[in-house]
Amino acid sequence: MATHTPPDIRTVREIGEKCSNWKRWGGQDELGTLNFVTPQRVAEGARLARQGRVYSLSIAFDERGPQTGGLMRFNPMHFMLRDGANAVTGTTVRDFFGGVNRHTLGTDDVIFMPTHSATHWDALAHITFDGKIYNGYDATEVSSRGARKASIDAARDKIVGRGVLLDVPRAQEKRWLEPGEAISGEALQACADRQGVAIRPGDFLLIRTGQMAQVQQQGSWGSYAGGDAPGLGLASVPWLHASQVAGVATDTWGAEVRPNETSDVFQPLHSLLIAFMGLTVGEMFYLEDLAADCARDRVYEFFFVAPPLRITGGVGSPINPIAIK
Amino acid sequence: MATHTPPDIRTVREIGEKCSNWKRWGGQDELGTLNFVTPQRVAEGARLARQGRVYSLSIAFDERGPQTGGLMRFNPMHFMLRDGANAVTGTTVRDFFGGVNRHTLGTDDVIFMPTHSATHWDALAHITFDGKIYNGYDATEVSSRGARKASIDAARDKIVGRGVLLDVPRAQEKRWLEPGEAISGEALQACADRQGVAIRPGDFLLIRTGQMAQVQQQGSWGSYAGGDAPGLGLASVPWLHASQVAGVATDTWGAEVRPNETSDVFQPLHSLLIAFMGLTVGEMFYLEDLAADCARDRVYEFFFVAPPLRITGGVGSPINPIAIK
Amino acid sequence: MATHTPPDIRTVREIGEKCSNWKRWGGQDELGTLNFVTPQRVAEGARLARQGRVYSLSIAFDERGPQTGGLMRFNPMHFMLRDGANAVTGTTVRDFFGGVNRHTLGTDDVIFMPTHSATHWDALAHITFDGKIYNGYDATEVSSRGARKASIDAARDKIVGRGVLLDVPRAQEKRWLEPGEAISGEALQACADRQGVAIRPGDFLLIRTGQMAQVQQQGSWGSYAGGDAPGLGLASVPWLHASQVAGVATDTWGAEVRPNETSDVFQPLHSLLIAFMGLTVGEMFYLEDLAADCARDRVYEFFFVAPPLRITGGVGSPINPIAIK
Amino acid sequence: MATHTPPDIRTVREIGEKCSNWKRWGGQDELGTLNFVTPQRVAEGARLARQGRVYSLSIAFDERGPQTGGLMRFNPMHFMLRDGANAVTGTTVRDFFGGVNRHTLGTDDVIFMPTHSATHWDALAHITFDGKIYNGYDATEVSSRGARKASIDAARDKIVGRGVLLDVPRAQEKRWLEPGEAISGEALQACADRQGVAIRPGDFLLIRTGQMAQVQQQGSWGSYAGGDAPGLGLASVPWLHASQVAGVATDTWGAEVRPNETSDVFQPLHSLLIAFMGLTVGEMFYLEDLAADCARDRVYEFFFVAPPLRITGGVGSPINPIAIK
Repeated sequence: MATHTPPDIRTVREIGEKCSNWKRWGGQDELGTLNFVTPQRVAEGARLARQGRVYSLSIAFDERGPQTGGLMRFNPMHFMLRDGANAVTGTTVRDFFGGVNRHTLGTDDVIFMPTHSATHWDALAHITFDGKIYNGYDATEVSSRGARKASIDAARDKIVGRGVLLDVPRAQEKRWLEPGEAISGEALQACADRQGVAIRPGDFLLIRTGQMAQVQQQGSWGSYAGGDAPGLGLASVPWLHASQVAGVATDTWGAEVRPNETSDVFQPLHSLLIAFMGLTVGEMFYLEDLAADCARDRVYEFFFVAPPLRITGGVGSPINPIAIK
Repeated sequence: MATHTPPDIRTVREIGEKCSNWKRWGGQDELGTLNFVTPQRVAEGARLARQGRVYSLSIAFDERGPQTGGLMRFNPMHFMLRDGANAVTGTTVRDFFGGVNRHTLGTDDVIFMPTHSATHWDALAHITFDGKIYNGYDATEVSSRGARKASIDAARDKIVGRGVLLDVPRAQEKRWLEPGEAISGEALQACADRQGVAIRPGDFLLIRTGQMAQVQQQGSWGSYAGGDAPGLGLASVPWLHASQVAGVATDTWGAEVRPNETSDVFQPLHSLLIAFMGLTVGEMFYLEDLAADCARDRVYEFFFVAPPLRITGGVGSPINPIAIK
Repeated sequence: MATHTPPDIRTVREIGEKCSNWKRWGGQDELGTLNFVTPQRVAEGARLARQGRVYSLSIAFDERGPQTGGLMRFNPMHFMLRDGANAVTGTTVRDFFGGVNRHTLGTDDVIFMPTHSATHWDALAHITFDGKIYNGYDATEVSSRGARKASIDAARDKIVGRGVLLDVPRAQEKRWLEPGEAISGEALQACADRQGVAIRPGDFLLIRTGQMAQVQQQGSWGSYAGGDAPGLGLASVPWLHASQVAGVATDTWGAEVRPNETSDVFQPLHSLLIAFMGLTVGEMFYLEDLAADCARDRVYEFFFVAPPLRITGGVGSPINPIAIK
Repeated sequence: MATHTPPDIRTVREIGEKCSNWKRWGGQDELGTLNFVTPQRVAEGARLARQGRVYSLSIAFDERGPQTGGLMRFNPMHFMLRDGANAVTGTTVRDFFGGVNRHTLGTDDVIFMPTHSATHWDALAHITFDGKIYNGYDATEVSSRGARKASIDAARDKIVGRGVLLDVPRAQEKRWLEPGEAISGEALQACADRQGVAIRPGDFLLIRTGQMAQVQQQGSWGSYAGGDAPGLGLASVPWLHASQVAGVATDTWGAEVRPNETSDVFQPLHSLLIAFMGLTVGEMFYLEDLAADCARDRVYEFFFVAPPLRITGGVGSPINPIAIK
């Protein structure tokens, strides 16, 4: 990366080759860095749930979310199949239940959402590079029928362990990082040092940029989805690779800095982290309440449980990640 | 219930009045028995994650699920917005990214499902009784816009704690309970005694009937969704009320015994547990692997983390419940 | 309407009472002014298809449509169940067809859209006024299960007849009417006179404002959906009522002038035309090519066939209206 | 076809080569036999609308339709965004309209359906054969983004003309053809002769098998979707090719006889008619009322207007076909 020309596809390939985890866990692997999660680390993580304080790290799933149509993504939609008014007016009694007593009736609903529309994990099948996905599987394994390799349901019992919050702006005594600010591996290490927390293999790293606090203060998502944002830069990749973390999540739309550092690659860290390293990446995590708690007691580690839905063939999953201190 | 005529709406009302938790936690409460969850109990629950063995208690979310159209419910649908073939053929390059390098492209997908179609929690707003939902809120609070009271997102950081498996058929030395077999409070207590586990306030109770093992062996869901099933009977309600559990889930479609014991009320326990008691009820939990583990080491308690998605106004949520031993 | 204070809900009620068609066709009627369509008029309309020139009056149904989220409406979504890449890679062969020859495979897709998102008819059940819909049916007849009265499928064989284009801007020698410009009954009559065409009972009136030409020239829909627009004003209602037309459609989002003339009623003509008169209203019709044809040969009448989909309980329907000259 | 072995993929190829229309209308053609529609033929067709009797040829679009999940197809779903109960209870007033007068409110809904789930046209892009679609376009032109060639919107102003009903069972003095009964070109010609109607180039041929009458009498769709059915046989293809009809539709799920005559090809006529000939094929047409009318007055020709929705990239479209006598 110490180059005088701006980074481009060649830079991505060069870093990718150094940080690749393809075949590291065998030719059939679909989990990538989630392989760093072990029963021992799960048990150690659980011991961090000392006080029983529980934080939901999810934003609201509804039509007021951040999506504005980019990449064909839309905000979660919610429809009722039957509602309380049906009970009151007796609509469903006549339609469904014949002679059955109408005194008690159920309501039902439907959720319709891109898996990447709100708080979510990216599956390893989410990114193709040169016609391949993680571990060298062919991109055509992800067809209109879904992903047959490296889909999110492979991770259904794997996203449990020690969580560590890196509150980058707080460590730098800022309210938030500015859009366009790239976070390096050095910055991550400095933040951990300042917080007095060590990163260990198998950890889930929650990296706060503060952008969600910024849009909250603005009172509008604005261009949060796809616009300029602080986030991980190319210089964070070797550090993340060396750290052997199991997963990484941020409070931004796309985890990485925008505008992207590369002149000709859209979201280059997605290629590096997901396609090359097989790192499970989370986005749009709501970290404000957890960060305030950590700032209060100066404990930045916790038990982290963030299971994806078991969506067969999914290239992502909506989630409600839980941190327990 | 000591009556010589079959139970009916009057029976439901009578039990409901005795077991009601309306106003127990104030007139504004939307959590019901999830109020039994306290930080102390969460921390105690976490201590049960001793070995770090993680179980996903979800069935697969896909078009091969159990739904057959009853109550207008359908199996989860999964559509691709962009897939790997688009990357290979370059379709999306031309459509989205103009001059951007096509070497790396993302895949995206959409999930569409009734919240009650696979493994899920019922929200307290899921059931109306005499024009009211839990805590006396008017049924019209659940409109075509969703539930404004007692919706599932209210519980987003509350479904964490000690889990206990009651493996009813195994305690009775059966492979599974037969359809139509009602489980009483006495049977639940006998099972707990046999397993050597005490039920405590704030617990999440996972009740295995074995029906999922039965349909697995049959190789087909058959009439699992809405057909005859073993499950909780009216005689379990006072016991569940007295136990002060925070939530209850089973491995069946509808938690309660079918055919229902009442002559004129559909799913009477839904009224009793959800509308009167404010108990969060889970359905279609996959308990087979967890049950085998518990049978092996005779430890029937574990840490339980099963966060609902934060669906604004949802009357239910798809989940991937996690048990950690 | 000759009032010195701005129109409000009282104005709407006053006009509504004068122009109401409730009970005109009996207490069970669900068709409103479509009752003006008779076999004789249909046959007369068909005679206008003299040259066999066919015009589709629909805009494209896709994600690039005019919707921006207002009223929870979104642009049509289109998903593939199986695509050509599946055929090439053999994905679906393995999944569906076992030993069947893979040389020939089908592609399948799904459409998901608000019925009012693109070119469409409003059903008479689309508007409630004082808790009632057209003909005095209770608004609760339109429940989460759809409309049990006055739904769009009632009109499935009724929207056929003589069509007349009123090209208002061209008659006024303008390219388009400006946003905020209200069209009166006098203006409609003047346009018809200028064009040398008589309006007859049972006609379908296509009223061009030119707004679609304007957004086309702008290269963006802008605030077409719900923003300021030219359109029908309150002063057109008595004329439309007297004319006994069967239906009316425009090339704008909402048929009527915006900002609305009323201080306290949203889209007052929807109440008047749909709820009181029972007039079937069409919106977002693409009239540019037809208008150019009419300007060329000075024939403003044609055969008009615009069947709604037979959506049970629909309060609207997407359509592809056809004009034949 | 005069072969002693059962037809297979080679038979399909052999007939296909004889009946192919590839390049007949140039290398850029996306309309196939709809090219036979000309203004003159449209005008002639319109003259058949003599009495003004209008028939809707669509089945109902709702959850009670024929689909049972085959090919991942499902019955049309209909959701309300806002309903009349919202108006009565004021839900949407609070949510949407702030201070606006609640006396008048709109209802809105959403339709979600496979384009092939009820009465519909197949687009020419619906069928791939040896990696190609009609006119030799590559199958990958039909990607997860939809069909870029030969999609249904190409036909938006083309499906208008003379319609002819061939009531095959009535001509044979039967109520309906039995499942498995293949209709040959000779049978079609005999039916036309018996009815005293000539088939002409550019016609739209509606072929009644009576299967819909049969399922109506049974009171259940049964295995209508994908099960055994009467329908077009391989021996009808040369006749249909020679006839130069613009389109063909039937009252069955899949137009062709089932079980299929070929041992190793699923729905071989789809390959022949759609991929090779470029013939627009309609399915699940409701022909009962029209057939009764034709039997009454012995007039089997009419004006036919059946525009597809203008679904960008659609490989099919739901329709409400209109016949006017």
